[in-house]
Amino acid sequence: MKQLAVIGVGLIGTSLALAAKRSQPGLTIIGIDRDALTLEQARARGAIDQCFVVDDLSGLAQVSGLSGCDAIVLALPVRQFPAALASLSTVIGPQCVVFDVGSTKADVLAAAQAALGSKFAHFVGCHPIAGRERHGPLAADVTLFEGKSVIVCAPNADAAFVDVVGTLWQSVGARVISMSPEAHDEVFAAVSHLPHMLAYALVDELASRPNARTLFAHAASGFRDFTRVASSSPEMWRDIAMNNQSALLTEIDAYIARLQQLRSVLAAKDATALYEFMQRAQAARERWLSGQLDQFKNEGS
Amino acid sequence: MKQLAVIGVGLIGTSLALAAKRSQPGLTIIGIDRDALTLEQARARGAIDQCFVVDDLSGLAQVSGLSGCDAIVLALPVRQFPAALASLSTVIGPQCVVFDVGSTKADVLAAAQAALGSKFAHFVGCHPIAGRERHGPLAADVTLFEGKSVIVCAPNADAAFVDVVGTLWQSVGARVISMSPEAHDEVFAAVSHLPHMLAYALVDELASRPNARTLFAHAASGFRDFTRVASSSPEMWRDIAMNNQSALLTEIDAYIARLQQLRSVLAAKDATALYEFMQRAQAARERWLSGQLDQFKNEGS
Repeated sequence: MKQLAVIGVGLIGTSLALAAKRSQPGLTIIGIDRDALTLEQARARGAIDQCFVVDDLSGLAQVSGLSGCDAIVLALPVRQFPAALASLSTVIGPQCVVFDVGSTKADVLAAAQAALGSKFAHFVGCHPIAGRERHGPLAADVTLFEGKSVIVCAPNADAAFVDVVGTLWQSVGARVISMSPEAHDEVFAAVSHLPHMLAYALVDELASRPNARTLFAHAASGFRDFTRVASSSPEMWRDIAMNNQSALLTEIDAYIARLQQLRSVLAAKDATALYEFMQRAQAARERWLSGQLDQFKNEGS
Repeated sequence: MKQLAVIGVGLIGTSLALAAKRSQPGLTIIGIDRDALTLEQARARGAIDQCFVVDDLSGLAQVSGLSGCDAIVLALPVRQFPAALASLSTVIGPQCVVFDVGSTKADVLAAAQAALGSKFAHFVGCHPIAGRERHGPLAADVTLFEGKSVIVCAPNADAAFVDVVGTLWQSVGARVISMSPEAHDEVFAAVSHLPHMLAYALVDELASRPNARTLFAHAASGFRDFTRVASSSPEMWRDIAMNNQSALLTEIDAYIARLQQLRSVLAAKDATALYEFMQRAQAARERWLSGQLDQFKNEGS
């Protein structure tokens, strides 16, 4: 790979650029963003070689150099993908792969199919499991992907393009896992998107109280860790929630039902059932932390 | 202070013993626990000088040396306090203060009043805001209380006893804050007890799924931090939930209502309202992290 374009130089885009340059020093990286200051921060960190401010994604096709890229990565909030892909569709060269880093996949692949038409085989859906609550190029980290998983959803793509993207992820230290887009969206609705919603809801609930100042004055490390993901970008997470709406609604409902079950046990002052509930959860988390995944149920997907 | 008894040498009891000994090298500490191995671990760490295994809290009164203590601290799950206090009531000397480290306060003060009778003035309710999800003497840390708050609820106690306990907390690096037991229980139901319930519920919900193995295989750092408090002791947290039941039920209901509000916005695909919800929460958390408490509402207690 000689030339890579990164569209959106936030936490993930800039981290990927930094890591790709480290593993391949001759690589030229074109950085594209709507915000000139953000681009300058990414350039100052040595992540990108050329900067293009693009206010409107329909202007992407006018960025010089894109047609000469070996790869283009979309590192934008997922609701901006349709516009970006529509604009890119005219400039994707015959050897160019397009991939993304979005947290939802069925919607992204549908958008790519609609926008790219015959070039849909160039598109490799990716989701690096390497988020942080901090965003922007200043939060970027060259080691962000080391030891992390990247889920690849590309039932549509040419094998050669999948290989190029897989090699890139491996070169920055990540482990590639293939999954169907539907399975991906169900799994991450449960283990990632739901906890984000739960954390946003807790912070918003307490901040709305008349005695919010007293509450936050006494919030400590448990609250800090529980709500860490509520510091995540609202724009990015609005898009994820909107684009994985169905799975996420199912998760919220299941969660509320489980919480109501805990509430019933507490309302009944059933100390034994309360202990068992907590003990099951604690034991499950310890199994997870110690890597004993084979002790979890594996009847479904 | 020359002699201190620590009843329950778990994380908090052992950490307090270690820190008290460091600030006052001549102090003799009597360690009491139901578990001989736990006691031996606390002794091996240098936290306690004498060990007493007490299977049944009614046997506390037989522990030699208790009547000669300047202070006795209850570091047990709060539902064991009535039995412990009833047994202690006969051995508390005229100069001896009894305090606790429990996470609920109205129930603890009521138990102390019922058990201690005329010696209720010896009891100082305390809650160090210094928990961790790890428990037992091996998790203890001599610096655990440094820079932390200790809430003191002692409307009943002699001022001299409150001073002794306050001085002890300050000597281990903590900041003492007075509060009514009722205000304490309301505040900590919201900022601590509720998040624990929410984390237990999420882990239990996902662990119960047919595809639990797949889910936990893809759970990452956001999930880990969100659920950290679900690794807390089920015995301790059952007791806290049972003893702060009323405030906690109110909190669970308010939380479910707020989560339903978020769900409605998502179900309606109202991208603007969804963004505003998340943005409010994110901004509130940032205000909190940066110490801008004066920007929170302060109309209530």
